[in-house]
Amino acid sequence: MAHPLFEKHQTLLQRALEAVRGRSYWSAYSENPKTYGENAIEEGRKAFSAYLDAQFYLDQPGVMGRVIAEPSPYGLKLDISFPQCSPDALIAAAKGAMATWVRAGADTRAAVCAEIIERLNGRTMEIAHAVMHTTGQSLMMAFQSGGPHAQDRGLEAVAQAWGEMKNVPEAVVWEKPQGANPPLVVEKRYTVAPRGLALLLACATSPTWSAYPALFASLATGNAVIVKPHPSAILPLAITVALARQTLKEAGFDANLVSLLVDDSGTPVAKDLAVHPDIRLVDCAGRSEYAEWFEENARQARVFTHKSGVNCVVVESTDDYKGMLRNLAVTLSLHSGQTSMAPQVILVSSEGIKTPTGTYLPDQFGRDLSLAISALLEDNARAVEVLGAIQSPATVARIDAMREFGTESGQILRDSSTLQHPHWPNARVHSPLLLRAEISDRQVYMEERFGPISFVVETATTSESFAVAERIMREKGAVTFAVYSTNPVMQQLAEDVAMRAGVALSFNLTGGLFLTQSAAFSDYFGTGANPAASAALIDAAFVTNRFYVVQSRRLAG
Amino acid sequence: MAHPLFEKHQTLLQRALEAVRGRSYWSAYSENPKTYGENAIEEGRKAFSAYLDAQFYLDQPGVMGRVIAEPSPYGLKLDISFPQCSPDALIAAAKGAMATWVRAGADTRAAVCAEIIERLNGRTMEIAHAVMHTTGQSLMMAFQSGGPHAQDRGLEAVAQAWGEMKNVPEAVVWEKPQGANPPLVVEKRYTVAPRGLALLLACATSPTWSAYPALFASLATGNAVIVKPHPSAILPLAITVALARQTLKEAGFDANLVSLLVDDSGTPVAKDLAVHPDIRLVDCAGRSEYAEWFEENARQARVFTHKSGVNCVVVESTDDYKGMLRNLAVTLSLHSGQTSMAPQVILVSSEGIKTPTGTYLPDQFGRDLSLAISALLEDNARAVEVLGAIQSPATVARIDAMREFGTESGQILRDSSTLQHPHWPNARVHSPLLLRAEISDRQVYMEERFGPISFVVETATTSESFAVAERIMREKGAVTFAVYSTNPVMQQLAEDVAMRAGVALSFNLTGGLFLTQSAAFSDYFGTGANPAASAALIDAAFVTNRFYVVQSRRLAG
Repeated sequence: MAHPLFEKHQTLLQRALEAVRGRSYWSAYSENPKTYGENAIEEGRKAFSAYLDAQFYLDQPGVMGRVIAEPSPYGLKLDISFPQCSPDALIAAAKGAMATWVRAGADTRAAVCAEIIERLNGRTMEIAHAVMHTTGQSLMMAFQSGGPHAQDRGLEAVAQAWGEMKNVPEAVVWEKPQGANPPLVVEKRYTVAPRGLALLLACATSPTWSAYPALFASLATGNAVIVKPHPSAILPLAITVALARQTLKEAGFDANLVSLLVDDSGTPVAKDLAVHPDIRLVDCAGRSEYAEWFEENARQARVFTHKSGVNCVVVESTDDYKGMLRNLAVTLSLHSGQTSMAPQVILVSSEGIKTPTGTYLPDQFGRDLSLAISALLEDNARAVEVLGAIQSPATVARIDAMREFGTESGQILRDSSTLQHPHWPNARVHSPLLLRAEISDRQVYMEERFGPISFVVETATTSESFAVAERIMREKGAVTFAVYSTNPVMQQLAEDVAMRAGVALSFNLTGGLFLTQSAAFSDYFGTGANPAASAALIDAAFVTNRFYVVQSRRLAG
Repeated sequence: MAHPLFEKHQTLLQRALEAVRGRSYWSAYSENPKTYGENAIEEGRKAFSAYLDAQFYLDQPGVMGRVIAEPSPYGLKLDISFPQCSPDALIAAAKGAMATWVRAGADTRAAVCAEIIERLNGRTMEIAHAVMHTTGQSLMMAFQSGGPHAQDRGLEAVAQAWGEMKNVPEAVVWEKPQGANPPLVVEKRYTVAPRGLALLLACATSPTWSAYPALFASLATGNAVIVKPHPSAILPLAITVALARQTLKEAGFDANLVSLLVDDSGTPVAKDLAVHPDIRLVDCAGRSEYAEWFEENARQARVFTHKSGVNCVVVESTDDYKGMLRNLAVTLSLHSGQTSMAPQVILVSSEGIKTPTGTYLPDQFGRDLSLAISALLEDNARAVEVLGAIQSPATVARIDAMREFGTESGQILRDSSTLQHPHWPNARVHSPLLLRAEISDRQVYMEERFGPISFVVETATTSESFAVAERIMREKGAVTFAVYSTNPVMQQLAEDVAMRAGVALSFNLTGGLFLTQSAAFSDYFGTGANPAASAALIDAAFVTNRFYVVQSRRLAG
C-alpha cells in the first residue's frame, strides 16, 4: 500500500522526472515573491528575527555545548546559539534510523523528500532572510537562489534518484526454458540499498542551493545525512534540518535520518568525521584546497566536490557590442562575483573585437567594460541590491591585494570602492575591481581570485585566446565558459575547447540571460570533467553512486 | 540520419534495454551449441588451431616486439606470438580516434557495439576453444560462459549505457515566461562526453565474461579502450580486439578506439600505464591484492574492480537434504571452484541440520557432502568435464598447502586427487579438497583459497553462523551468499545479513540452479558494497561514471 505522501506527491514526482528527462523550461516553485503572499517578505523577516539572540531548538542526541552564529556580512549581530552534538552520537543515531527507511522503498522515500521540500517552500521568506544574513546576498537574490531555485534543485535530485531507483524492479519471476524439461523458475527480489552514512559539507556563499541536491539525492536513495554547515552560514541549514526532522517524524520515520553538526572556525570537525569508516558519502562545496583534502583523504567514501575554478570569457566578435558590455557588467557585479559561476579572465585578441559598428581594440574594450560596470552601479540603492555584501573579510583582503598588483603595474581598469548601504551601515559592500593583465602575468590571473575581481587579458589572436582559456580551465577548473563570436568557425573552435575542458559553454549572452544563471531541470552545473568539480548537478552519476542493488533469489514452487 | 548499423540493431537494443529494466528471463545469444551449426565445434577447433605456432595479426601502431602465449592448462603448447606495442603509441592513437566517435552520438556508438558483439557471436566456437586453452575451463563451459553468456553481458552493458545516454536529450529549446515581456528563449545542446581513455585489465579465469561489460560500457559511452589481457589468457581477447577493430573500421571509425596491449609475467606494464594522466577509467578483474593496487594508486582515474572474496554458505534446514548435497557438490566442483562466485566456507551449527528425514549433525553433513562430491566425480570422463583444468600452478600449490593443514590437524573430509584427462595427458586436473575447520582456525578459512578448496566450519548456533558469515563477507568480501533454511525467521535473518554485507543471496538451491550462475539481464554480479568488488555488473553506476554531459547554450533568434 502506498504511503499517503506518495499519493500526495506522485504527480509532482512524475512531472519533475519528465522535466529532468526533457530539460525544457519547468519549475515547481515560484521565483516571484508576490506568489508567497502580500506580506510574505515582512513575515519572513519576523520569523527570521525570532531566531536572533536565542537558542535554536533542535532535538538531537549527544549535545555537548553550543556554537554561536557569526555576525552577518550586513553587520547584524545574529547571536543565535546552535546545539553542538557529538559526531559519534549523530552517527549512532543515523545508523539506527536507516533500516526502516530502506524498507520503505523508493516511492515513499521520494515522496517524503518532496514533502520536506514543499514545507521548505512554505518557509521560503524566512530562509531568504537567513541566507541574506549569512552569505551577504541581497534579499532578492537570497530569496530566489536560496529559496525556489534551491528547492527546484532539491526536487530535481529527488526526481533523478527516483527515476534511477525505479529502473530496478522490486521483484520478478525469472522463467528460463529448459528444452523438453519444465522451465527453471526463480523468484528474485531487488532492494535499493544505501551506500551508508552521508556527510554533507556546505559552503558559505550558497548554503541551500549547493547543499539541497546532495541532501535530497542521498536521502532519497536511503542514506542518512549529517549536515555540517560552514560556520558562517549555519542558520539556513539549521532551519532546513529542523524541518526535515519534523517531516520525517510525522511521516513515521526516525528524525535522525537528517541531523545538524555545527562547529566554529576555531575547532573544525569535518576532517575527523570525513575519514570515519561509517561515512560512505561525502559531499563538499567549498574552496579547492579544502575540498581536495576530502578527495585525497576520505578514501572509504565516495566524494563529490564542487570547488572553485577560473572561469573564462573569450570575446572575438558580436553584433551587439553594447548589449554584450551590459551583460558582462551585470555578470561581474552580481553578488560581487561570489559564485563559482562568475568569470574571472576575459580574453581579447590584439586584433580587436569585430562588430557592426567597427572593431574595438582590447584597450578600448577594457575602458568600455569599466564604464558599463560604473553605469550599472551609478545609482547607490540599485548598486547595493546588485552587489550584495562581501561574505568574508578574506575576500576584501583579496581585493586589496589585487589592487596593489594593479597599482604597481599600472593596470587598473576600474578600481573597487566601498559603498554605503542605506539600511545596513556596517555592511561590507565593495564594487568590482577590473584589471588589465599581461599574458605573461599567469601567476596573477590564473590563480582563482574569488570575489569581484576580474582581468582583461590581451592575446595575439583569438586562437591564442582559446588556447589560454583551455589551459586555464583544464588546469584550474571552470564551470562556465562564455564566448562572444558571430563566426561559425570560431564557434566550432569554442565547442571543441568546451568539450576538451569539460565545461558548460554559453554563446553571445546579451539581454536577460546571464552566465551565472543555471536553471534547475535544464542546465547541468559542473561536469566532473575538470578540477572545478568532481560531480555535476544533477546528472545520473550524482545519484547512482549513492546506492547499491542487493538481490535475493529462490526457486519458485 | 541514422547510421545503417543503428537501423540494423535498433530493435535489438530496445529489446535488450527492456530486458535490463524488467530483469525477467531474456537472452540474445543461444547457449545451445547446436544453434551454431552441425559442425560448429569442429570448425571452431580448426579456426583455433590456425592460430597455433603462428604470428597473431593485429595492425596496431608502435610494435616493439612480440610476446609468446603461455601453454594451455591442458598441456597444449600454443606458441602464438602477439605484437607488443608501445603504450604511448596506443594512447596517442586512441586519443586521436575519440573525437569522431563522440560526435557519432549514442545511437551509432551503441549500434556499432551491438555489431561487434554479433560478430563475436559468429566466432563463438573459435573463442570457446581459445577460452578453454587459456583458462582451463571445459569446452562446454568455455563455450557457454566465454561465448553467449559473455556476449549477453556485453550487450547488457551496451543497453544500460544506451538507456542512460538517451536520458539526456541532444538539444532542447528552453522557453521561460517573463510576465508581460516576451519569453526568454534559449537553445541548448547536450553532448555525452567520454571520461577519456579506458584501461581494461582482464583476468585469467574468465577473460571474455569479465571483460566484455567494461569493454562495451566504456566504448558505448565514447571512450577508447586499451585491453590488457592477463599474460596467460591473451588469445580470447586478441580475437575480440581484432574483430572490434575491423568492425569499427568498416563502420567508418578509427580502429584505434580498441587496442590490445600485451605483456608477459616477467615485465608487467599495467601499473605504469594505469597511473598515466590520460587513463581516466581503469577496469580490473583479478586477485584482491593486485586490484587494490589500482584502487590505491590510479587516482586520476575512476577504478572499477572485481576482486576475490570468501563466499559463504549457511546451512540450517532443508526439505531436500539430498538435493542440497548434490547442488553443493556441483557448485564446489564446477571449474574446480575457479570463479569468484564459488563458495569457500560452509557454516553448520552443532545443533545440526533439520530435515524431514531427521537432523544431521555437522560431522555427518561433512561426510555426506564428501560422498556427494565423490559420486558426482565417479565417472572420470564426466569428472574432467565438470572440473576442467586448473588454470594456474599456484592453485595446485594452494591445494597442497591446505592438504598439509588438513593432514596436520586431522581435518580432511575429502582429499583432492589428480585425474587423468582422456584427451589431454598433461592437463592439470585436480578434484576438490574438502576440509573441516575449527571456528578458531580463522587464519585458515577466512583467507581466500582460490580454487577447489572449501571448509565445513561448525558453529554453536545458526545465529553464530550468520554472524561469522557476515564478518567474513564484510571484511574479506563476497559476491555470493547461499542459505539453506526453511524457517522464515532464519530467512529474514539471512536477508538482513545480505543487506548489511551487500551480497547477493540465494535461498535453498537444489536442482538446476547453482550458486555460481549469474544470468545476464537479470542477476547483478557483485554490488560494490563489500571488498569483493567496487562495481556491480551491470548497474547504472557502472555506466554513468564513464561519461560526462557537456552543454552549450545560446539565445534563440
